Amino acid sequence: MADYREMWKELGMDLETHDQLCEVLPMAFTDVYLSQKNRPENMGYFDFVVSEIHGVRPAELVQAQKDGKKVFGTFCVYVPDEVIFAADGIATGLCGGSQFWVPGGEKVLPTNTCPLIKASVGARLDSTCPFFKIADMYIGETTCDGKKKAWEILGEDVPMYVMDLPQMKRSKDYKAWAEEITELKNKVEDFTGNKVTAEKLADSIKLINNKRRALDRLYSFRKNKNIPISGKDCLLISQIAFYDDPTRFAEMTNKLCDELEKRVEEGVSVFPEGTKRILLAGTPLAIPNWKMHNIIETSGGAVVCEEMCTGTRYFERLVDETKDTVEEQIDALAERYMGINCACFTPNQGRIDDILRLCKEYDIDGVIDINLKFCNLYDTEGFLVERALKEAGIPVLGIETDYTDSDVQQLRTRVGAFIEMLER
Amino acid sequence: MADYREMWKELGMDLETHDQLCEVLPMAFTDVYLSQKNRPENMGYFDFVVSEIHGVRPAELVQAQKDGKKVFGTFCVYVPDEVIFAADGIATGLCGGSQFWVPGGEKVLPTNTCPLIKASVGARLDSTCPFFKIADMYIGETTCDGKKKAWEILGEDVPMYVMDLPQMKRSKDYKAWAEEITELKNKVEDFTGNKVTAEKLADSIKLINNKRRALDRLYSFRKNKNIPISGKDCLLISQIAFYDDPTRFAEMTNKLCDELEKRVEEGVSVFPEGTKRILLAGTPLAIPNWKMHNIIETSGGAVVCEEMCTGTRYFERLVDETKDTVEEQIDALAERYMGINCACFTPNQGRIDDILRLCKEYDIDGVIDINLKFCNLYDTEGFLVERALKEAGIPVLGIETDYTDSDVQQLRTRVGAFIEMLER
Repeated sequence: MADYREMWKELGMDLETHDQLCEVLPMAFTDVYLSQKNRPENMGYFDFVVSEIHGVRPAELVQAQKDGKKVFGTFCVYVPDEVIFAADGIATGLCGGSQFWVPGGEKVLPTNTCPLIKASVGARLDSTCPFFKIADMYIGETTCDGKKKAWEILGEDVPMYVMDLPQMKRSKDYKAWAEEITELKNKVEDFTGNKVTAEKLADSIKLINNKRRALDRLYSFRKNKNIPISGKDCLLISQIAFYDDPTRFAEMTNKLCDELEKRVEEGVSVFPEGTKRILLAGTPLAIPNWKMHNIIETSGGAVVCEEMCTGTRYFERLVDETKDTVEEQIDALAERYMGINCACFTPNQGRIDDILRLCKEYDIDGVIDINLKFCNLYDTEGFLVERALKEAGIPVLGIETDYTDSDVQQLRTRVGAFIEMLER
Repeated sequence: MADYREMWKELGMDLETHDQLCEVLPMAFTDVYLSQKNRPENMGYFDFVVSEIHGVRPAELVQAQKDGKKVFGTFCVYVPDEVIFAADGIATGLCGGSQFWVPGGEKVLPTNTCPLIKASVGARLDSTCPFFKIADMYIGETTCDGKKKAWEILGEDVPMYVMDLPQMKRSKDYKAWAEEITELKNKVEDFTGNKVTAEKLADSIKLINNKRRALDRLYSFRKNKNIPISGKDCLLISQIAFYDDPTRFAEMTNKLCDELEKRVEEGVSVFPEGTKRILLAGTPLAIPNWKMHNIIETSGGAVVCEEMCTGTRYFERLVDETKDTVEEQIDALAERYMGINCACFTPNQGRIDDILRLCKEYDIDGVIDINLKFCNLYDTEGFLVERALKEAGIPVLGIETDYTDSDVQQLRTRVGAFIEMLER
C-alpha cells in the first residue's frame, strides 16, 4: 500500500486511531475475498481499490479540489449525483460500514440507532475517514428518523444541505421531489460557481446511466444457471460504485463483464452444482460489511441478487436521456429517483412487487430479509414482505443483525438450517 | 360503573380480554389519583370520565353515529380537528397508553418500536379499545418512521387516510401542509357527505380554540408560586382533552379554573413549601400513562409543565379567527399547526427555544427529559436539548422508559437523587 500518511495528516485525520483500522481491514479482506477460488481476473481492479480504499480515491479527490473542484459527500441513493457532476462537482459516498466507527457515533447518538448511521457519524467525529474529511459539503435527506436527526449533529461540523424526500408517491410528490432537485441544483451551482446547463446535465445523465448499465450488465450474469461470479464479489463492486470515478468504474465493470460473458459461454460457475440461489432483501450493506454474504456463501448458498441500496435499488431503471431542457431533465431525474422503492415510503407495495419480480428474474430458491438493527422502517415492512413471499410460496428467512461479530455463530446456524431446508 | 357490555359486544370487542383491563385500571387510578390530598373539587368531572373511559364517551359516539355522524380516530396533534368538526364529524383520540395493549402490537410490529405505537396497534387488533372499534376512519400522518409504517398494517383493517407532514419548516413546507389540510377537507367532505363552508370552519376554529384557551388558562395557574393543582391532575385533563366533547371539555376545565383562581387568591398549594418545580419535556404520555408524574410527585417534585403533545404542544397558540374564506382559514390552520415543534422536523431549534422559554415562564428548578423507548427522534434530539439546558445552567435529567413497571424502582432512585440535587 502506498504511503498516504501525509495526505491523511493534512486532512486532519486521527492517524493513530486510523492505523488500527488500516491494520484490520486487509486481514478481513483476505479472509473473505482473496480466499475465494476461481475468481474472475478482472476483480483485480476492485481488489486494488479496496486495498487502497482510504488512499487512492481520496488522493484523486484532494487533487480535484486543488484543481478547483468541489466534493459532495452523500448518504443515500435518492440524491441525484447527476446534478453534482453537471456542476463539475464530484459526488462520493462516505464511510459507514464498519463496527470500528460505531462507538464514536454512540457518543452523540442513541444506542438504539442503526449501525450505519452511528458508524457514519462516528467516522466523521473521530476523524478516521478521509472521505468525510475531504467533502466540502454533505447532502443529506429525510429518508428516516435516524438520519434526519443525525444531520443536525453532523451539520455543526461541516456545511450540510438537506433534501426533503416526500414520504408518499402521489403525483404531487413527484413534483415536490423535482422541486427539491431544482433547489439542490441551485445550491450546487452557488457552491461550485458553475452553471448547470442542459448540455452538461445531459452529459452527466449519460455518465451515471452508463454506471447503471454496467451494473445491470453485471447483475444479468448472475441470472444464469452457472453463476460466473460470487455474490461477495458483486457486493464489493456495488459498494465501490459509491466512491469511484463513474467513468472508470463503468469501464472496469464492463471489462469484468466481458470476462463473465466468456465464462457464461463456457459454462463456468464459481459455485458447485446444487448451490442454492439466494436473494438478499433489506437494508444496505456499506463497505466493508461483508458479513451476511460471507456467511451465506460459506453455508451452501450463493447470493445472486441484492434488493438493496447496495444492489438493485442503486442501478435499476435509467434516467430518460431524450430531454433537452434543464426543467425536463429534472422531471426525468425525479421520475427515475422516485421510482426507487425504499421502505421510507408509505405505502410501499412497489417494493414487494420488486422482490417478487426479482425472485423470478434470478430464479431464486429462497430470500433472506436482512434488517440492520434498529432500522424500524425495514423491520416493520419486513412483516409485509415476508407475508407476501410466504403467500407466493417462496421460502424466506428474516434476520436482524448489526456490525458486530457476536452473532456470527448464531447466524451461521440459522442460515445453514434455512439453506438446508431449501434442499429438501 | 354503568353497564356498557352490550355496547362493547355490538362493537365487536373481545369482552373477556377487555374485562382484564377494566379490572386493573380503577385500582391504578385509585392509587395514583384518588390518594392525593386536597384535590380541587372540580376534578370530580375528570375522575368520572376516567372511571367510565370506555363507556360514557364511546356511548355518545355510538349515538352520534346512529344520528348519521362520522367518527374519525386520530393519533397526532398535527391533525386539524377543526376540519373534521366543520364537516359535522367528530374527532377522537384512540387508545395507546397502557402496557396492556403492547403484546398485541408486538405480534405484527418490531419489538424495537415505541410502546405508544405498539399499544395503539395492539388495542385495535386485539379489539380491546372501543374508540378504535367505533372510528369510521383513521387519520394518520407521516410524523415518524414507526407510525408511518404502522398505518400500512392498521389500514388493512379499517379505512385509513394518511396526511404527509413535511419534514422541514421552509415557507414552501407551510404551503404543502395547507395543501394536505385541503385534501383532508375534501376527504372528510366526501366521507361525511357534508360540505365544509367558511361559516362552519369559522365555528369549529372557535370551538377548538376555546379548548386551547381553557387548557392555557389551566396551565397558567401552575406558574404560581403556590401550585393549586398537581401535575398528575393536569396531565389527566390533557389526556382527556383528546377524547372529550370539545365544548363540554372547555366548560368543565373552565369551571375547574374558576376554583383554581380562588385557590390562588387564597394561596392554596397542593405541594409543601420547597417542593421542586419540574418541567417534563419529550414524548407524549397517553392515558393511562401516569408513571413519571407519579414518581416525580411522590419524590419531592411537582410537575408544573409538560412540553409534550399531552401538554403545551397541544394547546399553545391559537388559530387566527379573523379569516373568512375557507382558503384563508386553511392557511391559518397550517400556520398554527406547523408552529408545533415536534422532533420529527429537521432542524428543530424552535423546540429548544420553547423549552428554555417554558423554564422561565414556569419558574423551573429542573427539567426531566423523557423518551419513550425506541423513539429515535426525541432520543436523538435529547442530545441537543440537554446540551442547551446545561449551557443555560438549568439542571436536566434524561430518562428513557416504556410502559412496563420493571424500571419503577430504578427511576424512583434516579428521580429522587435528581430532585435532591436540586435542593442543594
